[in-house]
Amino acid sequence: MSKTEVKAYAAHANDADLEPFTLSRREVLENDVKIDILYCGVCHSDIHQVRNDWKNSRYPVVPGHEIIGRVLQTGSKVNKFKEGDLVGVGCMVDSCQECSSCQEGLEQYCENGFVGTYNGKDKHLGGHTFGGYSENIVVREEFVLKVPENIDAKAAAPLLCAGITTWSPLTHWKVKKGDKVGVIGLGGLGHMGVKFAHAMGAHVVMITTSPGKSEDAKNLGADEVLISKDAVQMKEHANSFDFLLNTVPVGHDVNPYVSLLKRDATMVLVGAIEPLDPIHGGGLIIKRKNIAGSVIGGIKETQEMLDFCGEHNIVSDVEMIDIQNINQAFERVTKSDVKYRFVIDMKSLKN
Amino acid sequence: MSKTEVKAYAAHANDADLEPFTLSRREVLENDVKIDILYCGVCHSDIHQVRNDWKNSRYPVVPGHEIIGRVLQTGSKVNKFKEGDLVGVGCMVDSCQECSSCQEGLEQYCENGFVGTYNGKDKHLGGHTFGGYSENIVVREEFVLKVPENIDAKAAAPLLCAGITTWSPLTHWKVKKGDKVGVIGLGGLGHMGVKFAHAMGAHVVMITTSPGKSEDAKNLGADEVLISKDAVQMKEHANSFDFLLNTVPVGHDVNPYVSLLKRDATMVLVGAIEPLDPIHGGGLIIKRKNIAGSVIGGIKETQEMLDFCGEHNIVSDVEMIDIQNINQAFERVTKSDVKYRFVIDMKSLKN
Repeated sequence: MSKTEVKAYAAHANDADLEPFTLSRREVLENDVKIDILYCGVCHSDIHQVRNDWKNSRYPVVPGHEIIGRVLQTGSKVNKFKEGDLVGVGCMVDSCQECSSCQEGLEQYCENGFVGTYNGKDKHLGGHTFGGYSENIVVREEFVLKVPENIDAKAAAPLLCAGITTWSPLTHWKVKKGDKVGVIGLGGLGHMGVKFAHAMGAHVVMITTSPGKSEDAKNLGADEVLISKDAVQMKEHANSFDFLLNTVPVGHDVNPYVSLLKRDATMVLVGAIEPLDPIHGGGLIIKRKNIAGSVIGGIKETQEMLDFCGEHNIVSDVEMIDIQNINQAFERVTKSDVKYRFVIDMKSLKN
Repeated sequence: MSKTEVKAYAAHANDADLEPFTLSRREVLENDVKIDILYCGVCHSDIHQVRNDWKNSRYPVVPGHEIIGRVLQTGSKVNKFKEGDLVGVGCMVDSCQECSSCQEGLEQYCENGFVGTYNGKDKHLGGHTFGGYSENIVVREEFVLKVPENIDAKAAAPLLCAGITTWSPLTHWKVKKGDKVGVIGLGGLGHMGVKFAHAMGAHVVMITTSPGKSEDAKNLGADEVLISKDAVQMKEHANSFDFLLNTVPVGHDVNPYVSLLKRDATMVLVGAIEPLDPIHGGGLIIKRKNIAGSVIGGIKETQEMLDFCGEHNIVSDVEMIDIQNINQAFERVTKSDVKYRFVIDMKSLKN
């Protein structure tokens, strides 16, 4: 298969800095869309993969799965997209398309495993896939999203991961107008959870350990702020939440949050791919409470989210960087020192 | 208020044996039913309360919340019951009847707290309530169940706690014909879970650490037995269960069980009112799995369960004892040495 060389940034080993790298992209096949990458969000997962925190990294790692760009070229059978369209690519570039999950539009739960935008198995060129910290990308059309032209394209990048990761559970668990919804943790995911829950008409409570985040949370759309270290406040809110979106990205003690749920209500984990502190069975049993998990979202619901963002003019709060500053950005993400997502201006790659 | 003296067995302190005791019952009020107790099941909770394991026991403790008897007397406004009716009383004898949970028929989740059949707050006589290890009991009619005459009355006693505790989650989570249902742990609760799930038409898998329980499990209605210590078997069943009923009564490692669930499926805890070993967030996140809890069941669903038992001729497997042997029975329950529930023949109390 013919290939083209593409500029990118890659990490070549655990703990190594990202540096300029040239990767190969496949030729545009009949169902493919080739996208000129304008912007790419910096997700915490990018850092986990570069640092091999999940023990499944394959080097060189070219991260990036919050991709916004314009269509450069389409394959002969592509009819959903044309040259110049504003499009997005998220965490997936392929899946089996045949299993029950794929058939239901839930490719993120593909029974045969979806192909990650980076660090996935590349069935065309062999080896592994390379992500959006690069000039362009070739993706089969089923995994390309239409991005509304009326929203700020650079601030739309994080919708493809941070956005859909919070949108999917909010809609799957049917959050509706008037529900009392708690968003735990105010980072890249949490700030999108607050915006979406607010736009859905919920009464949104930002639940955070940091009193300093109160004003920001309210500006993002939170109706209230609950400081989780304050036992008195926590008790006042006991058994009162219809839904909790837990965006904390590390193992932690979820028992205080479980105590906030109403009977039959659910707390969904979207960040903590780690062991949690011991959960007390009684906390679930006494009022039939639920703890669940959720990972990103399917292509159909991602498109629904983007359309909703177009209607409600929702984007992420972002800080733009040049690709040359990616290693410093990683350091700052690690310290939660970003409001709320870095986005790389990919023009800088051409310098 | 006038009272009558009633023979019973009570524990007077933590770790003390149960011994003969005389308690007072209130007079029959207009909405009350007085029940001559024929049989009373021995629940593991009885032991926890006698031993103050949950740190909320009030002595003397007269245990017993799996009560079967015949109506002796009814209050002037009672019209659902008449003298001689075969009836049951479970874990609750009162609730506020006004909160949203009570209004939905879910008195077990009463927002103001239900009144336990024993060790609850007695609002008529003061002090605390006394359970079914006694000659008779006076209960408001809303908390009295009709027991079908065609089933074995003594073996029906455990339906009032072990039965409804497993029935309620199986029906709430809509277990249906053809579902693959796992019942974890083969004790008093587990053996009822197997019987019910089998009668509902599910493909029932008994999940146990003990290969020795296989034959019994199949006799109770299990289609398969999965030995949870066998990593190969566990892997074969990975991601395949529609529902798991976890009856293990102590804290344990639930991660191997979570791995058995299908996408979107739920494991419900009904026994472990203790801290669980750390749960890995990834196990829930990767396939949107759920862990929940459930406690006993409401009066309406308890009646539905009893009616179902009448239609399907379902009762518990029991071993009958005299009240004089209650302390030895407690010892045997503690060692899981009973198939599957002790029931006290309350005639023995008259000796």
